[in-house]
Amino acid sequence: MSFSPAIRELVEAFRTLPGVGQKTAQRMALYILERNRAGGERLSQALQTAVEQVGHCNECRTLSETDLCPICADERRDTGLLCIVQGPLDVFALEQTGYKGRYFVLKGHLSPLDGLGPEAIGIPELLRHIDTHQYTEVILANNPTVEGEATAHYIAQLLQDKPLSLTRLAQGMPMGGELEMVDGGTLIQAFAGRKPVQF
Amino acid sequence: MSFSPAIRELVEAFRTLPGVGQKTAQRMALYILERNRAGGERLSQALQTAVEQVGHCNECRTLSETDLCPICADERRDTGLLCIVQGPLDVFALEQTGYKGRYFVLKGHLSPLDGLGPEAIGIPELLRHIDTHQYTEVILANNPTVEGEATAHYIAQLLQDKPLSLTRLAQGMPMGGELEMVDGGTLIQAFAGRKPVQF
Repeated sequence: MSFSPAIRELVEAFRTLPGVGQKTAQRMALYILERNRAGGERLSQALQTAVEQVGHCNECRTLSETDLCPICADERRDTGLLCIVQGPLDVFALEQTGYKGRYFVLKGHLSPLDGLGPEAIGIPELLRHIDTHQYTEVILANNPTVEGEATAHYIAQLLQDKPLSLTRLAQGMPMGGELEMVDGGTLIQAFAGRKPVQF
Repeated sequence: MSFSPAIRELVEAFRTLPGVGQKTAQRMALYILERNRAGGERLSQALQTAVEQVGHCNECRTLSETDLCPICADERRDTGLLCIVQGPLDVFALEQTGYKGRYFVLKGHLSPLDGLGPEAIGIPELLRHIDTHQYTEVILANNPTVEGEATAHYIAQLLQDKPLSLTRLAQGMPMGGELEMVDGGTLIQAFAGRKPVQF
């Protein structure tokens, strides 16, 4: 005996979500059907609405329901500063720092083995965007992973002849981190980037 | 800056799922919108269909799209044997053992602090079910947790005067378990239930 077709399909559909395996998908499906059918209808509706209405900002390519996202529509932001990130969640994270410039949101990082070349992640749109704006500094905020570094390096090469300063986020010890817990790669970066003590 | 309303609502809707917190919900929502909109539509549709079509079996109360679930509709199963479980996933688990009797599916366990009394988990329906069938043995397969034991004990008291044998699943060492890894409660049960070696 196995589940009936409608439950089986629901389990399979949950499994397409990231980090959800067979057992978790079963638990989610049973939870919806046994305990929270209203929650199931709400999620169904939210998915439908989001898939239909959410597109990309014409300027920075982040997810947005409007042609221009709230950040790009904000006249008060610094139009000389551009921060390149790998995805919309990164925008959310960086907004917590008080950064007041603009963003450009790539679709992840270069990954030739997965067939993700410059076109797939939006490099041509990025170059057009930079050519049509007057930026003085471009911050490459790709993740400090192997793929992120490679992507940042690739973009840096494309932009090196343009009249703007290119920067990369600092690497080193995270706040509250402990030497014995931090990995070797991070320690190497922290050593290499050590700074004179300020009095 | 935060997400746009449709994305925010999608994140909130994902958070109603068990085991899904803010970060996971964000990741799921962004995954759907950035990488797998077809998966989002599929999940939306599957939720709608399941919520609309899946009800409960008239006999055993498990989740079913038909009035009678496949197990209750199966004439070849032993109609003298009833196994009481806490939820539909338990039916799925027990079917792997080759058990050929019937089931009755409760809605979880008694939990007075959460307002879940006998009515909420389906005890009256269980008693009616047992009164209208000719069972010779009732297996209390509630989970061996504090709440499950209490629920099994409660049911056992209700059924003690009826002409049927009441049994409980054996407790002890799990297959492949190691003494040093097993908790004390399980070891106590394993000791108490020790059996003579069979030659």
